[in-house]
Amino acid sequence: MASAPASGEDALIARYFKPIATDPGAFALDDDAAVLKALGADVVVTTDAVVEGVHFLADDPPDAVARKALRVNLSDLAAKGATPAGFVLTLALRTADDAWLKPFAGALGEDAKSYGCPLLGGDTVSTPGPITISVTAFGRVPADKMVHRSGARPGDRVVVTGTIGDAALGLDILKGGAVGSALAGDEAARQMLIGRYRVPQPRNALASTIRMYASAAMDVSDGLAGDLTKLCAASGVSAAIHAPGIPLSRPASALVASRKVAIETLIAGGDDYEILCTVHGVDFEVFAQDARKAGVPVTPIGAVIAGSAIPSFMDAQGRELLLKRRSWSHF
Amino acid sequence: MASAPASGEDALIARYFKPIATDPGAFALDDDAAVLKALGADVVVTTDAVVEGVHFLADDPPDAVARKALRVNLSDLAAKGATPAGFVLTLALRTADDAWLKPFAGALGEDAKSYGCPLLGGDTVSTPGPITISVTAFGRVPADKMVHRSGARPGDRVVVTGTIGDAALGLDILKGGAVGSALAGDEAARQMLIGRYRVPQPRNALASTIRMYASAAMDVSDGLAGDLTKLCAASGVSAAIHAPGIPLSRPASALVASRKVAIETLIAGGDDYEILCTVHGVDFEVFAQDARKAGVPVTPIGAVIAGSAIPSFMDAQGRELLLKRRSWSHF
Repeated sequence: MASAPASGEDALIARYFKPIATDPGAFALDDDAAVLKALGADVVVTTDAVVEGVHFLADDPPDAVARKALRVNLSDLAAKGATPAGFVLTLALRTADDAWLKPFAGALGEDAKSYGCPLLGGDTVSTPGPITISVTAFGRVPADKMVHRSGARPGDRVVVTGTIGDAALGLDILKGGAVGSALAGDEAARQMLIGRYRVPQPRNALASTIRMYASAAMDVSDGLAGDLTKLCAASGVSAAIHAPGIPLSRPASALVASRKVAIETLIAGGDDYEILCTVHGVDFEVFAQDARKAGVPVTPIGAVIAGSAIPSFMDAQGRELLLKRRSWSHF
Repeated sequence: MASAPASGEDALIARYFKPIATDPGAFALDDDAAVLKALGADVVVTTDAVVEGVHFLADDPPDAVARKALRVNLSDLAAKGATPAGFVLTLALRTADDAWLKPFAGALGEDAKSYGCPLLGGDTVSTPGPITISVTAFGRVPADKMVHRSGARPGDRVVVTGTIGDAALGLDILKGGAVGSALAGDEAARQMLIGRYRVPQPRNALASTIRMYASAAMDVSDGLAGDLTKLCAASGVSAAIHAPGIPLSRPASALVASRKVAIETLIAGGDDYEILCTVHGVDFEVFAQDARKAGVPVTPIGAVIAGSAIPSFMDAQGRELLLKRRSWSHF
């Protein structure tokens, strides 16, 4: 008798995912489960799903979708001070479309390699609905050293990495909004902003610095204002933010200066995947020095203060900005 | 100022999932990640997604859906010899419907407690499509002691737990197929079979016995014939199965005896969530004794043989059954 004919599902896994499951704990995807060695560390676990039409657009390139699905999870690991250790993937697809799967798996494998976060296992299922990709990622931190949302203390500096609001502008362009017209003459800026929406650049290079110096941290995924509100609530503190000090990219800055986009839109927009953290004053200089060495721009934007008020964002004149919306919510 | 208004998503998590996230490593779902302590063991990781209309039916009760989503993963941990350690959940919903979420979360919490597998974290997202639930579950095994698919050796006995094919019959009843009419007078049998489809009974009680005595193991989720084919391929062996010895429930047995259902249908049907394992001859008696103590019925159904042929299923006259289909595949 011939050997067993592979099912469509098994053939799909063999063709696209086995080649990128190179970690010994993945058992070449030939088993029902993977093994993750903790190596004496705490295993940090985070999970995030992305849905076609909600987190990415139906015509987003499949390689970008793969990178986003993994990187939104890598961003959580970075913010928690954890070193990536691996991930599992569940993929709900309408059809096993080679033209989509090949670049998807290829880019996933590249990111797994470059971030040191190997594919350990997964599940591929059919769906009549939108493509839905769920990633659970694992990291390692020394025992009890995960960085929480809850450690911010009055007097700490509030810091963000990179620039804020670019992804919200990129999404607006992709949806045919006003930002695209405002940047009609500047294709480089349009592409940069779209890239910021489609392919996050998680700050894993900063993880050990976060672990050493941040009193609290989280990644900015649902809007800076809302995420800072969550961090403050978890820490039992408030914060005062100097809005003009929030780091913006050149195009975002120009759009705000020309009053085509309000700063409120940028700080309530999602998909930044930068890190928001708080750092004790005495640690700030060495923190900033470490960040420079890691190649990650960090900017202090305000201070943690006592109290339970919602964090306030002040304009250049010291007036509080009225934020109608602080973050993105699914429901 | 008032405290921060919770978003719909945060309110949903606070109302339904925080109460069941009692493990200290879940940080009351107030953080971006969870911590799993390996306690010196290997962490076994498995992930399975269930999709409305594919793995469960739109009118399946939400409590049954929750149990199935978790238990299909618990079944993998059992087959790998692992003790449950926790799970994360991603939930893609069209709306935040209290009438669905309350029984869903309630049943999930009950199962988490009774199987010792606490909710560690998750992600709740909106979808325009079918409800999609992805669970990643973790277990612990002593270092390098996970039970693989690949350890079966010629001469080993092939063993299954419980009974085979009931879930396939239950699904046929729910879909209005011929099985329902054949059992028109026997509501108890109909309900039992439907229950076997909707709510698997994973064999976690047998995990340590599997770890001690099984040379290879996997759970039967896509059909006994196909899953045995996979186990044999991974082990580089074949198997000869005595089909009349395959354990069937009373209704399944009656349907086969009256020729209303073919045994082929039962061994190619999915959703059994029993354990298929191989046990060396000298270990079989003590394995069976341990299983009895654990309260899990085990039945030897054949033998592992040398070769690379697809496993054969023989009828009472020793003739090989012709299997047109061996298992369920999504694509």
